[in-house]
Amino acid sequence: MSSLTQSPAWLALAQHQHEIKTQHLRELFATDPDRFSRFTLHAGPLMLDYSKNRITEQTLSLLLDLAAQARLPENINRLLNGDKVNVTEHRAALHTALRNRSGQPVMLDGADVMPGVRRVLQQMREFSDAVRQGRWLGYTGRPITDVVNIGIGGSDLGPAMVTAALPADCRPLALHFVSNVDGAHLCQTLKLLDPETTLFIIASKTFTTQETLLNARSARAWFLQRAEHHDHVARHFVALSTNREEVLRFGIDPAQMFEFWDWVGGRYSLWSAIGLSIALGIGMDAFEALLQGAFEMDEHFRNSPLERNMPVILGLLDVWYINFFGAQTRAILPYDQGLNSFISYIQQLSMESNGKHVTRAGHAVDYATGAIIWGSSGTNGQHAYYQLLHQGTTLVPADFLAPMESRAPLGNHHLVLLSNFLAQTEALMRGKTEAEARRELERAGMKGEALEHLLPHKCFEGNRPSNAILFQKLDAHTLGALIALYEHRTFVQSVIWDINAFDQWGVELGKQLAQGILTELSDAAAPGTHDASTTGLIRHLRFHRN
Amino acid sequence: MSSLTQSPAWLALAQHQHEIKTQHLRELFATDPDRFSRFTLHAGPLMLDYSKNRITEQTLSLLLDLAAQARLPENINRLLNGDKVNVTEHRAALHTALRNRSGQPVMLDGADVMPGVRRVLQQMREFSDAVRQGRWLGYTGRPITDVVNIGIGGSDLGPAMVTAALPADCRPLALHFVSNVDGAHLCQTLKLLDPETTLFIIASKTFTTQETLLNARSARAWFLQRAEHHDHVARHFVALSTNREEVLRFGIDPAQMFEFWDWVGGRYSLWSAIGLSIALGIGMDAFEALLQGAFEMDEHFRNSPLERNMPVILGLLDVWYINFFGAQTRAILPYDQGLNSFISYIQQLSMESNGKHVTRAGHAVDYATGAIIWGSSGTNGQHAYYQLLHQGTTLVPADFLAPMESRAPLGNHHLVLLSNFLAQTEALMRGKTEAEARRELERAGMKGEALEHLLPHKCFEGNRPSNAILFQKLDAHTLGALIALYEHRTFVQSVIWDINAFDQWGVELGKQLAQGILTELSDAAAPGTHDASTTGLIRHLRFHRN
Repeated sequence: MSSLTQSPAWLALAQHQHEIKTQHLRELFATDPDRFSRFTLHAGPLMLDYSKNRITEQTLSLLLDLAAQARLPENINRLLNGDKVNVTEHRAALHTALRNRSGQPVMLDGADVMPGVRRVLQQMREFSDAVRQGRWLGYTGRPITDVVNIGIGGSDLGPAMVTAALPADCRPLALHFVSNVDGAHLCQTLKLLDPETTLFIIASKTFTTQETLLNARSARAWFLQRAEHHDHVARHFVALSTNREEVLRFGIDPAQMFEFWDWVGGRYSLWSAIGLSIALGIGMDAFEALLQGAFEMDEHFRNSPLERNMPVILGLLDVWYINFFGAQTRAILPYDQGLNSFISYIQQLSMESNGKHVTRAGHAVDYATGAIIWGSSGTNGQHAYYQLLHQGTTLVPADFLAPMESRAPLGNHHLVLLSNFLAQTEALMRGKTEAEARRELERAGMKGEALEHLLPHKCFEGNRPSNAILFQKLDAHTLGALIALYEHRTFVQSVIWDINAFDQWGVELGKQLAQGILTELSDAAAPGTHDASTTGLIRHLRFHRN
Repeated sequence: MSSLTQSPAWLALAQHQHEIKTQHLRELFATDPDRFSRFTLHAGPLMLDYSKNRITEQTLSLLLDLAAQARLPENINRLLNGDKVNVTEHRAALHTALRNRSGQPVMLDGADVMPGVRRVLQQMREFSDAVRQGRWLGYTGRPITDVVNIGIGGSDLGPAMVTAALPADCRPLALHFVSNVDGAHLCQTLKLLDPETTLFIIASKTFTTQETLLNARSARAWFLQRAEHHDHVARHFVALSTNREEVLRFGIDPAQMFEFWDWVGGRYSLWSAIGLSIALGIGMDAFEALLQGAFEMDEHFRNSPLERNMPVILGLLDVWYINFFGAQTRAILPYDQGLNSFISYIQQLSMESNGKHVTRAGHAVDYATGAIIWGSSGTNGQHAYYQLLHQGTTLVPADFLAPMESRAPLGNHHLVLLSNFLAQTEALMRGKTEAEARRELERAGMKGEALEHLLPHKCFEGNRPSNAILFQKLDAHTLGALIALYEHRTFVQSVIWDINAFDQWGVELGKQLAQGILTELSDAAAPGTHDASTTGLIRHLRFHRN
């Protein structure tokens, strides 16, 4: 047993869960008229209603004890102050410096990182302005019309998500994102493009990412088929990287390399030069509004008392369901079509950060850590998988997100959207009792055996927890705050679990093995040493590909 | 306790799981050289390697006992023969008749459904040919260039998935899918289109689906702004529905209504008239190849002995992990960019079918039912959430899918893709022991405290199960077989769990409540009776929207 699961705060929560697990949210609402105002919070542009969670005042108080026991305030300060919280890589995790709008320095190893941050922001502004205003010309003198961001993971999901969420009404540039090494991804994208007016952004922290470099080289070959001269590469390829040497080797002009630093983790990098495609898509002013929104959430996270701190409350609720109710997943259900890619983004953020099995000190955990994040935009999900949320056997805590105003007002579409959003949180919480279902069926003229037969299928247990996150409108400022909220919430979980949210050693083994298998797939030599399945599949592939 | 969890087959499996849960797949492979050939199956164009599952011969034999106990063969026959397996709605689930290429009749209530099926297929061929060949003209005499499918859930996910998976090299028509009631979805789509050359497909079984009809009416208004005369609607709007009356009321010519029947469930409807946008996108011949692939899987499902029956084996493995290992989810990881939407499709298929909490006879279950389906195309996921698959604390059984040949051959992209696919299944299975990790770190020149500190973070437990599904190339025929495989696998689960896979009462409560809330959001009257949270949110929305 670990010290965590034997700690007083943990044991108290386990005991408390045992006591309240049969309590229905209906009752909790019935007995406490102040439940809504008590369990509602504001932070920057966001409002959080967490009253439809299976908690009481005592639950929160016990969760806050757990936070205190884990020295959460101290850990928040360590994160924000540039301590080397990424203990296995001896690095800080200073993504908050990238959006520090305070004018104050951020010190790391005795030096202020802010001048570097501001320099790259200025470089991004100049370049994105030039391209957007048609001043940056391709090799035949025509302005750029299309931008292809080639990156994967953190070098793809953030920019793709933000630019999908914030579509400008009339964009000077069309944006494309290529991530998958599957040749279809690049081919389908290039099919539509003209090399003379296309700009490629090669986004890779190390500039050695296999998929990205392969796609980048294929894109360069496609470009050179038309452009012929290698010198033209410099007008059409820019790099976002920390590895100057590799960037030069690729043929990219060092003036068009946008730098970031080893204290920027991939999944926290959209605030850095990795955001260049965002700046190109929505303009640098909007990109800075995104930073501003995140900065305000950082300040809220730094300064609010734990019991009024939105990322803290959400992170603790996550722990509550994962560790005390056995929830393996969380659904994210944004009632905004633009936030459809938000789920993939949070999937990486949360699962890569907290899908860990050892503590910071290297001890195996005996409790569950990061949950699986899944979902899609409402109302689509209602017609797909909500059946399981309402009547399945698995508890799925859910985040419902909604803008009060639409960015595309059209008849009463938005009111219908909002009514569905509210109705789903209500339905999940209250359910439908047998008596209610019976009354309905009787009113519909049903009776006798037919009624008794159908009745159990029409009942809903309810008591399904959800958070509701509301905001006025989905704009850059709000989106920045929203992303930062989920970043910090993820960090809060990691502090409770005593794990390092900033490394990702789990991605290495597959990469290593792929190197060997690639040779075995291509060469005539016999496969190397594998299990019978892997060997059998390699043989099968070699046979059927010839 | 239910009879299922007290049944001999179930208890034997529980006992067996207890015995083998600590056995590592590495050992199982080491001790059985025939494991690969023993646990490999072929069906139509698909090959399944299920040897990387935590099973032995005995596991399979016990799972087959469970299948026999649930009278699976009898239930398969009842499904395929048109018995009213949807017991709460007194309906058959005859989607297999839609792809019955045998020339044999399929009887339902004493009548052969095949003449009707063939008639609609013929109607789809004539119409899609006319539109694709530019013979079907818009109201100003110009041919159609763009098709907008307006539908949601089953009337959207299937066609959207198939047409994304099978992009033609040069399509005569551009396809668009609008599902979400969020006005942004329709607005962003229409922004690019010309009413004179746009065809709308309104897909709704009942023709009363709130989102679809609202989008359809807004699309009609957009169209009439330019076309002016109501008569023109008939050239630009077609309906896929079972409700003739509502279709006429909308202004659609009955000749352009494509019929289907109440024995076609929404999530099983892409094989019916709901597939019209597929036929328009890839041509009717390719649509019929899709049907043919599914038909071959139906025949395999009908005729193969259970122990060589691919949907049966997969369905039983699902039960094994869900009920005996506590897995709440399954990841679907296709190594084909075209199958990215396959996950959303299977999400609905699986979760809406089996997210149930009562048996067919209406008794509450005391075991877990349908799992949460999630995932995305590899290699993207490797750079996002695979960390959790490898080093997280939650068991996530995974399906890996891969085509041996690429449809977009480009350098060695496809070999790199395949090497990653294989490496991931190998890495998940074997892991990396402490001794292996130590050797690696030592070779990298690390030692002493630094090594000991890093070591536990570099270990992988392994023993993570996966299926590998291989096929030559992703074409219509293969995709048809793949979809039917997952349909039947879902049905197999439902038979073991004794639940009705074909109703979806769980979607009703939210819809009901949304009606009332919509009025309360729009009207000046005070909100109705809700919990304090729902009332509070309604008040907040009313205040901030004014």
